Amino acid sequence: MASEFKIVRFVYGGEEDLGYLIGGYIIPFKEIGGLPKYLSYPFADDDDILRIFSVGDLSGYKALRIEDVQIVNPIRFPGKIVCVGLNYMDHVREGGREPPKDIVFFMKPRTALAGPFDTIYVPRIVKKLDYEGELAVVIGKRGRNIPVEEAYEYVLGYMVMNDVSARDFQFSDGQWTRGKGFDGFAPIGPWIVPREFIPDPHSLGIKTWLDGELRQDGNTKDMIFKIPEIIKKASEVMTLEPGDIISTGTPAGVGIFDKTGEKLIQDGSVVRIEIEKIGFIENRFRFVD
Amino acid sequence: MASEFKIVRFVYGGEEDLGYLIGGYIIPFKEIGGLPKYLSYPFADDDDILRIFSVGDLSGYKALRIEDVQIVNPIRFPGKIVCVGLNYMDHVREGGREPPKDIVFFMKPRTALAGPFDTIYVPRIVKKLDYEGELAVVIGKRGRNIPVEEAYEYVLGYMVMNDVSARDFQFSDGQWTRGKGFDGFAPIGPWIVPREFIPDPHSLGIKTWLDGELRQDGNTKDMIFKIPEIIKKASEVMTLEPGDIISTGTPAGVGIFDKTGEKLIQDGSVVRIEIEKIGFIENRFRFVD
Repeated sequence: MASEFKIVRFVYGGEEDLGYLIGGYIIPFKEIGGLPKYLSYPFADDDDILRIFSVGDLSGYKALRIEDVQIVNPIRFPGKIVCVGLNYMDHVREGGREPPKDIVFFMKPRTALAGPFDTIYVPRIVKKLDYEGELAVVIGKRGRNIPVEEAYEYVLGYMVMNDVSARDFQFSDGQWTRGKGFDGFAPIGPWIVPREFIPDPHSLGIKTWLDGELRQDGNTKDMIFKIPEIIKKASEVMTLEPGDIISTGTPAGVGIFDKTGEKLIQDGSVVRIEIEKIGFIENRFRFVD
Repeated sequence: MASEFKIVRFVYGGEEDLGYLIGGYIIPFKEIGGLPKYLSYPFADDDDILRIFSVGDLSGYKALRIEDVQIVNPIRFPGKIVCVGLNYMDHVREGGREPPKDIVFFMKPRTALAGPFDTIYVPRIVKKLDYEGELAVVIGKRGRNIPVEEAYEYVLGYMVMNDVSARDFQFSDGQWTRGKGFDGFAPIGPWIVPREFIPDPHSLGIKTWLDGELRQDGNTKDMIFKIPEIIKKASEVMTLEPGDIISTGTPAGVGIFDKTGEKLIQDGSVVRIEIEKIGFIENRFRFVD
């Protein structure tokens, strides 16, 4: 059996590469000699990227230390980023909403992506900046009308995402495109944990800290629509493609609905989101003109 | 002065290429010997594609006849497709809505793209299928916080788009992602007319026919938010990238708000949308299980 690994994208010596992270070491794809096209092509140009991430024998390759590289966001050019709103009952309740009759999807543009440890620069026109810690699914195989019982076969793996939200724009627009779509409003990572190493993605603790204070403390078991159902519902509408990101909603504890007042992201705030078996992302936010 | 040309994507002899359409003839990029990477890379991998579409002397190259190629959608892999809702007052009124206080943006996934003459297959779960004839802008240069007075410098050109809408999903979801996001819900084309050949994009007649009946008969002069304002507002939120598509809203005459009852797209219906100085797209719709 292969040892547990993660899929990382990183910069080393000024050059970008993908690699397998095993323990504290990275085996770069360039070292293995394969897959250079995946560094520039979108994954969606292929029908199935699951096979390219099947690890063979990695002995004999030169490894890099993780401390010596810069980890960047794992998906350079997704075809789409689809998110599920209102998918944890405690979060639905804290917002004073009714549970949705059907699944609520929205999208983020790829320009919203940011690396797991990037500083995120937000224009001052945003007045109410909030975090949402979420489990994100990365699609590995093209599919349409995917049945629930086959859904996991289309999953490459999992990562952490912060569904950063400008509550002022989100609530006043009605459509969530602007409020959820600013540059940097989708930090992801720190890497992709392949599906085979997370046999049950609905038993993971998910925690968010704002400036060191634990604000969200949920578990993915509490999703209203579970991952196979989300994949079924999304693929009824749109073809899912390799590299597509589907984020699965946030538990209670967002800043805007805090009972003692709004606990929002301030200039200089740091948001850390950690999901069991995956890792954490940690971003500082700065307001700029 | 260069003769007027259009930018087409087409398939000839089983191979895809971009080309310059001049009169009824296409000069393929492969013939010119340049730009092969743009056939597979997303345009967004470049900061500025305006220069690559500047035509030099095209004499001496072998041309194809337009009848001998299959015209496909002009943008293979846009970074994002951003649309403006409720941007013509007569359309706002026919829906019984208030004019929006601020611009309303939403997005379509790239899997919604279809060619200008493709048959579009829609699952039968969609019960209320409607058309929206729109002028779409193609971005040519990367930009953020673009001022109104510089906005046109970021435009590569213009094309026709049908913002196909499943009214049942659109209205029941609240968020428009599903209702506007099914595969094939963004037919575009038939080509890109470079900005230099349309000095005033706010004086173009825009007409939509459903099965031969003229249903929309508007003019782009009636947009509430004009193109420079749309570009300013979008780029306040998200970086605009080469190949991004921004659709600018539809005039009155959509099927759902017909005064005599709903005049929606039926199985086998043909929708033709024509914009002055650009051309037309014409798609047949089929419902499938």
